Amino acid sequence: MKKGIAASKGYAIGYVSIKENEEIIITNDKVKDTKGEIERLVKALDLSRTQIEEVKQKAFENMGEEKAAVFESHIMLLEDPEFVGAIKLEIEDNKTNAEKAVSSVSGTFLSIFEQMEDEYMKERAADIKDVSNRIILNLLGKVKGLEIQEKDTILVADDLTPSDTAQLDKEKVIAFLTNIGGRTSHSAIMARTLEIPAVVGMKDITSLVKNKDLVIVDGIEGNVIINPDKETIKIYEEKAKSYNKEVEELKRLIEVKTSTKSGKRIDVSGNIGQPEDVNKVIENGADGVGLFRTEFLYMDKDKFPTEEEQFKSYKYVLEKMEDKPVVIRTLDIGGDKKLSYLPLPEEMNPFLGYRAIRLCLDRVDIFKVQLRALLRASVFGNLKVMFPMISSLNEFLKAKEIVEECKKELKSEDIKYSDNIEWGIMVEIPAAAICAKELAKHVDFFSIGTNDLIQYTLAADRMSEKVSYLYDPMHPAVLSLIKMTIEGAHSEGKWCGMCGEMAGDIEAIPTLIEYGLDEFSMSASSILGAKQIILDQE
Amino acid sequence: MKKGIAASKGYAIGYVSIKENEEIIITNDKVKDTKGEIERLVKALDLSRTQIEEVKQKAFENMGEEKAAVFESHIMLLEDPEFVGAIKLEIEDNKTNAEKAVSSVSGTFLSIFEQMEDEYMKERAADIKDVSNRIILNLLGKVKGLEIQEKDTILVADDLTPSDTAQLDKEKVIAFLTNIGGRTSHSAIMARTLEIPAVVGMKDITSLVKNKDLVIVDGIEGNVIINPDKETIKIYEEKAKSYNKEVEELKRLIEVKTSTKSGKRIDVSGNIGQPEDVNKVIENGADGVGLFRTEFLYMDKDKFPTEEEQFKSYKYVLEKMEDKPVVIRTLDIGGDKKLSYLPLPEEMNPFLGYRAIRLCLDRVDIFKVQLRALLRASVFGNLKVMFPMISSLNEFLKAKEIVEECKKELKSEDIKYSDNIEWGIMVEIPAAAICAKELAKHVDFFSIGTNDLIQYTLAADRMSEKVSYLYDPMHPAVLSLIKMTIEGAHSEGKWCGMCGEMAGDIEAIPTLIEYGLDEFSMSASSILGAKQIILDQE
Repeated sequence: MKKGIAASKGYAIGYVSIKENEEIIITNDKVKDTKGEIERLVKALDLSRTQIEEVKQKAFENMGEEKAAVFESHIMLLEDPEFVGAIKLEIEDNKTNAEKAVSSVSGTFLSIFEQMEDEYMKERAADIKDVSNRIILNLLGKVKGLEIQEKDTILVADDLTPSDTAQLDKEKVIAFLTNIGGRTSHSAIMARTLEIPAVVGMKDITSLVKNKDLVIVDGIEGNVIINPDKETIKIYEEKAKSYNKEVEELKRLIEVKTSTKSGKRIDVSGNIGQPEDVNKVIENGADGVGLFRTEFLYMDKDKFPTEEEQFKSYKYVLEKMEDKPVVIRTLDIGGDKKLSYLPLPEEMNPFLGYRAIRLCLDRVDIFKVQLRALLRASVFGNLKVMFPMISSLNEFLKAKEIVEECKKELKSEDIKYSDNIEWGIMVEIPAAAICAKELAKHVDFFSIGTNDLIQYTLAADRMSEKVSYLYDPMHPAVLSLIKMTIEGAHSEGKWCGMCGEMAGDIEAIPTLIEYGLDEFSMSASSILGAKQIILDQE
Repeated sequence: MKKGIAASKGYAIGYVSIKENEEIIITNDKVKDTKGEIERLVKALDLSRTQIEEVKQKAFENMGEEKAAVFESHIMLLEDPEFVGAIKLEIEDNKTNAEKAVSSVSGTFLSIFEQMEDEYMKERAADIKDVSNRIILNLLGKVKGLEIQEKDTILVADDLTPSDTAQLDKEKVIAFLTNIGGRTSHSAIMARTLEIPAVVGMKDITSLVKNKDLVIVDGIEGNVIINPDKETIKIYEEKAKSYNKEVEELKRLIEVKTSTKSGKRIDVSGNIGQPEDVNKVIENGADGVGLFRTEFLYMDKDKFPTEEEQFKSYKYVLEKMEDKPVVIRTLDIGGDKKLSYLPLPEEMNPFLGYRAIRLCLDRVDIFKVQLRALLRASVFGNLKVMFPMISSLNEFLKAKEIVEECKKELKSEDIKYSDNIEWGIMVEIPAAAICAKELAKHVDFFSIGTNDLIQYTLAADRMSEKVSYLYDPMHPAVLSLIKMTIEGAHSEGKWCGMCGEMAGDIEAIPTLIEYGLDEFSMSASSILGAKQIILDQE
């Protein structure tokens, strides 16, 4: 038995098909005819565009509109003047060959995105890699593709790109295994979207198996059994059966409003990163959107999104959710999330630096565009707004002052906004949790952001391999701050939610209910399981 | 009136002397005769050594043995095979001229040191800059020197190097002003050592004044008045008189054991970074050493210090302090403090990373050498040991286990150690403060490290210019954690000290006494002022 990281739940028994990596050899050769080289590049870009259109169509058929949209962003990258311009410049100025130029420019883009913690940003890194590989393969005259013919295929690869996963035929591929990646890597996210089991981060699975090997994939424990005996197969067939039954049964909870046995009503909501994600949240019977990250609006662009663009996105989600609450978080850029068009200071510890509300209060010009868009969208649904990285009351009050300015402006322009918006804060800095009682007097609600709260409370960056073992959601100090926050909210009659990963952690839910948490917000795929746990609590 | 950063207390009225920067022009010219170029370098190194010996002698006369030792480290750098070797290699491999080679190699060294937060490390950066400038000036045939002839001189400079300050004649220079630097910059530290007023970080003072201008320096408020009228001069003469009287009067407190008016005995101790610093601590009548940073033993070296070297340093301080308590902190390396001979992982947020006790528990081989040295030294005084960056009980218990191992080893080698060592922890991570009551059951004492505690509690790196405004020792959340820590200690009958900058902050002392803090540890120059404040409390 071989252990990896469980990336997508479920069981599968099938036959190995190893995805061979296209061999890419890039030379350092200089070119003389830079004009001719740029023509080669343009041709490869055109060919890539045609191919991506095809992949997009397949993705639409396999995975729906939402995921097909990813390939829209691939096409945008192909047309991005900054990206293409940098490649051309590299060819012209340094006489670099086109393959090398694409590789080095995308390398620069990648190094920015890859270190980011945010799932959405990580997907963007995978996109860049995917597109630039495609361009290079086209330059080299090779073909990028993944044709699986057999049924019951377990796809084994070093890693899977967005193009790979988009073309996966769920009728044939029933699971996949990769050498690299973690729970939040692109391939892991796609496996959960496709709802097929996957184990990632297996290090050397491509060399441990060969084509046609029979393997069992246990996407719950993260185990893989190569060429199992009959008895083991039988055991896993049973496991798969009862798991599938469970999943089927959970669907009965879609329409159920969850309460504990003692009758306390608990909201189970979904986290989204892009407007279209709201569909999955609705499908899984969420009570609302507990966290709408708005960074996506600002990324993959060469300038700030307009008020109108933002307004449309917020309106879309609010209308889709009808009268259900939608908590939108204001811009949390800075730190590890950078924008090409917004120069930020170099910081030694970006997690302790200029980001989120700190940046917004400093750059009121940027902040006001978003606030105006939010206010305008508020008439289309049940909007709640929250500010990230609040460390003291002062910051919240300043933010509210700017909101009032925006309201005044809109009023003078005869533009409507709702008077029933709730204004809350993320509790993700220890200081906010410690001062929760005082803050609760002023805010309408709290949402605990456990990912950051845990990092600061334990002074441990969970992305740092050497100290990630310290990152412990159940550390007594973390639990104590969570309790303090909930009690602080309740002492002033306010509600308290949680939108960090811990909210969807079935081990943590019972404790959080005991503490009195009112709302749990998590990724769509965790909602039904969480509902079940909540129903079982006293 | 012109405002800057008050770097060293006191008043001075005198005449400007501007230190002109030696003009250094370094070309990119390549050399053909690399052998000849290396000979030029060697000559410049020899000349530099002779000059530094002279400066060292002057420093000894002006500032005592302790500060003269800095120039020992300059000489060491001149002889450092890694430093000199890299310069020679640069000349040989790239045909770089010697000036440029010195400049680029020292640049690499500097970039590592300059970003560091620690005062001691910042001084090291100033040292490297000073030495490399000297070598380059010698290569260019220019002279590095600072000759002040007039009495009542106010020295004005862009910045002052260690060589500059070492040569300052206190009979003539009565204050200085610099464009750059902050409270912990090298020049600020030296001003406090020389006990002359200084205002730093004035940005453009060198262009605002000219030689012979009359200026008033207010080192308490950080103000500078250029060409003041007679009335203003009179006001400041009065201020200076009463200030000097106050300083003189404070000396009566050297022998006084401080208690509050209600009779609670409070210990006032000193922080030290090097063994020799203990002398200043004793001169100022400290009750003990509250923080002995041991990093110095590991820096400026090309390998780990031996058990014997460490033992000697600890023994020196313990013996000097006689039976007074000496709290030694185990190695707090990692994060922003790196060692050339210990490769550490690149981290995005080193303050939330692999450092201090985390590193020591991972590298038991390094840790045990220090623990053995501490145990061996313990028989020569009143030793207390504390572990930095503790975030959970588990870490303390593991550290204690390793201590037990070392004791066993020493016993089997028939080497003595004291059975009365107290074992405590730094409380500098929010989790430790929150769990203080539980931790207090196991440790002998706490020492609150406010610098880090504040950073983590507010998620604000105080070295980041854009967010340093958030760094607030009096934030209610910070005060609440301090209170929790002290109460936690007392609930188990343990004592609680503080060794961060806040302990010497006269604004904070009354609140800390109210909370019940038992020991205040600070830089030697703050001790007498703090004693006065404590005596005035109820």
